[in-house]
Amino acid sequence: MADEKIPYSLNSKAVSQATRAWLHTRGVKIEEIAELVLLLQQKYYPSLTLEECIHNVEMVLTKREVQNAVLTGIQMDLLAEEGKLLPPLQDMIEHDESLYGVDEILAFSIVNVYGSIGFTNYGYIDKLKPGVLERLNDKGTGKVNTFLDDIVGAIAAAASSRIAHRKQAERERDLGLPHEPEDSEETSRRLHAEKLKTK
Amino acid sequence: MADEKIPYSLNSKAVSQATRAWLHTRGVKIEEIAELVLLLQQKYYPSLTLEECIHNVEMVLTKREVQNAVLTGIQMDLLAEEGKLLPPLQDMIEHDESLYGVDEILAFSIVNVYGSIGFTNYGYIDKLKPGVLERLNDKGTGKVNTFLDDIVGAIAAAASSRIAHRKQAERERDLGLPHEPEDSEETSRRLHAEKLKTK
Amino acid sequence: MADEKIPYSLNSKAVSQATRAWLHTRGVKIEEIAELVLLLQQKYYPSLTLEECIHNVEMVLTKREVQNAVLTGIQMDLLAEEGKLLPPLQDMIEHDESLYGVDEILAFSIVNVYGSIGFTNYGYIDKLKPGVLERLNDKGTGKVNTFLDDIVGAIAAAASSRIAHRKQAERERDLGLPHEPEDSEETSRRLHAEKLKTK
Amino acid sequence: MADEKIPYSLNSKAVSQATRAWLHTRGVKIEEIAELVLLLQQKYYPSLTLEECIHNVEMVLTKREVQNAVLTGIQMDLLAEEGKLLPPLQDMIEHDESLYGVDEILAFSIVNVYGSIGFTNYGYIDKLKPGVLERLNDKGTGKVNTFLDDIVGAIAAAASSRIAHRKQAERERDLGLPHEPEDSEETSRRLHAEKLKTK
Repeated sequence: MADEKIPYSLNSKAVSQATRAWLHTRGVKIEEIAELVLLLQQKYYPSLTLEECIHNVEMVLTKREVQNAVLTGIQMDLLAEEGKLLPPLQDMIEHDESLYGVDEILAFSIVNVYGSIGFTNYGYIDKLKPGVLERLNDKGTGKVNTFLDDIVGAIAAAASSRIAHRKQAERERDLGLPHEPEDSEETSRRLHAEKLKTK
Repeated sequence: MADEKIPYSLNSKAVSQATRAWLHTRGVKIEEIAELVLLLQQKYYPSLTLEECIHNVEMVLTKREVQNAVLTGIQMDLLAEEGKLLPPLQDMIEHDESLYGVDEILAFSIVNVYGSIGFTNYGYIDKLKPGVLERLNDKGTGKVNTFLDDIVGAIAAAASSRIAHRKQAERERDLGLPHEPEDSEETSRRLHAEKLKTK
Repeated sequence: MADEKIPYSLNSKAVSQATRAWLHTRGVKIEEIAELVLLLQQKYYPSLTLEECIHNVEMVLTKREVQNAVLTGIQMDLLAEEGKLLPPLQDMIEHDESLYGVDEILAFSIVNVYGSIGFTNYGYIDKLKPGVLERLNDKGTGKVNTFLDDIVGAIAAAASSRIAHRKQAERERDLGLPHEPEDSEETSRRLHAEKLKTK
Repeated sequence: MADEKIPYSLNSKAVSQATRAWLHTRGVKIEEIAELVLLLQQKYYPSLTLEECIHNVEMVLTKREVQNAVLTGIQMDLLAEEGKLLPPLQDMIEHDESLYGVDEILAFSIVNVYGSIGFTNYGYIDKLKPGVLERLNDKGTGKVNTFLDDIVGAIAAAASSRIAHRKQAERERDLGLPHEPEDSEETSRRLHAEKLKTK
């Protein structure tokens, strides 16, 4: 038969949908992550709405780097919950061992996507464990959320950074200051056109 | 008088223009960074053009995280060149001391913006020092480029990661696979519309 | 003449002493950083003393990676305070601009030395700004501590991680569990001797 | 019965031994990692021996942060090899997908333990894939080493950084320069004694 071996080709939509589906299966709603964002950001932007926070969380979740971390972390939690990891890794993840920091490392790769300004928000929320994080961190349920609680906090921190960048852009526009959007194909086309003109 | 103290408000266009101006002043052309990108990526994408690489370098340079690192690094080089840093920091930066790694740390914050897949490209190019990097790394000129050579390599690595993400998107489109673009407001509006329909 | 050009050779003691001297000059006492550590760790280790925290802060400060970050950060603060940086970098650092994250990046390189378990402590303390951090963060003094407040928080977080590693070692010893110290030349000699015996 | 639930207590020796055992099971010899180190460092230190490199690799492997990354990465490879991960993560790891960078993230947490000066060595070796890395990267064997090849490169890079720090210390001693060892309890005791004397 011809198609015996179809070469592997990634389907980014499948990765994206799996990310949302796995979060849902593990009991995390986008709205709950958005509530963390609102908690972190409303003192800086009093008019910030939950709807805006939801939008920003959704944008964060479209990033491949974020999807990779979410899927890998939830997979580890699932396997630990089913007792399918080898000792001593099984014990470390099952007990959320204090010297095991791979969960923080994955979380950090999420925060990093929107830059270093999110570091502080991540640490703060991960320590206080408000809202959904408190539930995820409850050790008496038989569930293992060693990776997931850090990942959810990181998504909230990344969305907060995204908001900070957008709000600055809005402020500049409101003040009539010259503004330069980040990594936008439109900007690029304009810059290119300007350059041609000056040649 | 009313305006005695005008509150500070960032002007993102000024930051963006300073980034390009400082690179220019330090003798680094966008085209030279693009050549590093082409060197890194042409074996994976034989049809990649220098023009595309230039575009991707320009996009990387519109990111605030990148601009912050470029400006900070070049500032340190300038001050070291003028002998204006305090010892022993002056000596460490002037001599590109092997145990001083803050230049690598700044470079890394650039690479990180487009995700972890750029780590390898950065290290590779920083070690081999092809093209513009060889010139920047020449210690006999009286110039101090301790930060700049790492920063230029990092911009090239980040642009390479950006290309990898874009090329994957193109491939999916060519194969007729479902595709989901990353962090795009358009996608968001579509997702939102779909959600409203299913309610 | 013979000694016209003495080749540069780093003097690690000078780097170490400068680190302590610069912190002192900028008004930060080791004891104050230790108090942050105590605040972070006393709920986990009720018998932890300030003296132990001081010791751990001092050990963190002997690390070259930490010294590099401290010296670089304080240098930037000093230059910004004197108005000697170029615009727009001068403005960004002087005003502790919310989208400028190089201070967090340097802080992070400090935390990282004792591993990812310190990420959370850093973010938490950097957000709450207890003790010395509140004073450093006071914007009405004419002082610029944009880098220093993050750096001090990071040293406290790193010392906390160091304590977590040591306390685990103590606990294992108390429980009579087999223990393996980290990166110790002694362990190495023992491992080597064991290997020779089994040959 | 009394002992119904023995509280979990980590056994650092078990973690350390598992790290070495898993590397061995996956066909990686300490000597092979040491050869990578020698390759990276012999041009800087012509008298460096393989024995010294072995010692430095062994020291890197005693670090908990490193052990965590090694165990987690090998576990992912094993599960992917057995087809036990959920799609699409299974596909991404099995095919070493170019946009999947969690392997690089784990590798990086290893390099970071000995500071930022190792970034370059890691990227360089991960790109060139000399020695054991070429074998690990061979996709035709049915084995999945998506994580392991990056991890082995990272251990070699970390060992190289460790050597750079030690060699600097040796050089200072040879030149009769004042020297300050990093994070050593001995130094601490001496510093403490000096302080008491000056009181």
